[in-house]
Amino acid sequence: MKNRENIPKATIERLPLYYRCLDKMDTFEDVEVVSSKDLGGKLDIPSTQVRKDLSYYGEFGRRGVGYNVNELKKSVGKILGVDRVWPAILVGAGNLGRALVNYKSFAMMGFEIAHVLDNDLDKIGNVINDREVKSAQDMEKIVKENDIKLGVIAVPSSAAQEVADQMIEAGIKAIWNFAPTRLYVPDEVEVKNEDLAVGIVSLIYHLSWQEEMEAKGE
Amino acid sequence: MKNRENIPKATIERLPLYYRCLDKMDTFEDVEVVSSKDLGGKLDIPSTQVRKDLSYYGEFGRRGVGYNVNELKKSVGKILGVDRVWPAILVGAGNLGRALVNYKSFAMMGFEIAHVLDNDLDKIGNVINDREVKSAQDMEKIVKENDIKLGVIAVPSSAAQEVADQMIEAGIKAIWNFAPTRLYVPDEVEVKNEDLAVGIVSLIYHLSWQEEMEAKGE
Repeated sequence: MKNRENIPKATIERLPLYYRCLDKMDTFEDVEVVSSKDLGGKLDIPSTQVRKDLSYYGEFGRRGVGYNVNELKKSVGKILGVDRVWPAILVGAGNLGRALVNYKSFAMMGFEIAHVLDNDLDKIGNVINDREVKSAQDMEKIVKENDIKLGVIAVPSSAAQEVADQMIEAGIKAIWNFAPTRLYVPDEVEVKNEDLAVGIVSLIYHLSWQEEMEAKGE
Repeated sequence: MKNRENIPKATIERLPLYYRCLDKMDTFEDVEVVSSKDLGGKLDIPSTQVRKDLSYYGEFGRRGVGYNVNELKKSVGKILGVDRVWPAILVGAGNLGRALVNYKSFAMMGFEIAHVLDNDLDKIGNVINDREVKSAQDMEKIVKENDIKLGVIAVPSSAAQEVADQMIEAGIKAIWNFAPTRLYVPDEVEVKNEDLAVGIVSLIYHLSWQEEMEAKGE
């Protein structure tokens, strides 16, 4: 395997797509062998790119034969780290927090929101998908006792930095941030911003362009 | 302006980041002029990339002086189509749907969930952020009367394709899909999949690698 630091970000971002596709083929479609062309075809990724992406991590499959679906799924899962469960704490038991706790397809990505915290006395004690909402004051205790590395922020922007600071103080190493604001964290802490408003822009850009073309009569 | 079809997808994806950053500088920080270096610096994007991205759309700023923040914000906003409001319908008034209707920072991206629909009789008639949940059977009427082009799917995977078909039948041209499943739509309809489970994987990949390094004593 190459040094992971030298692997393109775009490759890393495609791995979960391969993984999900392989899992579907393996679990629901009983497919045993798949070519890079067929795997790429299902994801709109050229077969040359599929082969190149996988080649960063070793040699998989056989020329002219293809990949064993189950084996490749296991290999990619191991590379991604989704072959085990990573428990997380989530702070913010509002609509978004509840939606995330109830989101069905996290489990196959090795991700589980194990604890839900909030500052709001009206929310503490509520039960969401079998998890009792606990006080944010208990964060350090929960993180340390359960050796949790992952934190999810689902609070309003105004509270996000404070929650991030508290998470890092408690021992969290990676933060998934749903508040539309930039977080300032030490270098060794990884942050993934899930900015929902950015997602819509590509669609608006497309619609806007389409209307422009229609106006021009093209 | 170049033909939009030839502009790299990565450039298009960076435009909303520029826009949000410029808006913040313009609205809250009273910054009048910004260099490509400073703009890039705030976003971890090299200044050469900033200049290249913007150059696809015309000539902005002056060499050695920089960009007028307010003007550039307006130009980028116009390119993105966020200088006007694009009303959308949302189907699925569960936790995720409610979270999206309440999400604060859509407005600045020109996006507004104007109508919320559901099939569930228990949800129809409820009010979410001043919007009454209507029956999904009224979709075509609502879409046509309000000339709506954008649809948001926040229903479970099992119902997503049916909702998409119904949206397209009603006249929707672009779909923002939060159900973790692939939708089959005609070529002229644009789909943006917001697959939340994929977002977590980069963090798990990072943690997994970090643990591997620690185990090796590096």
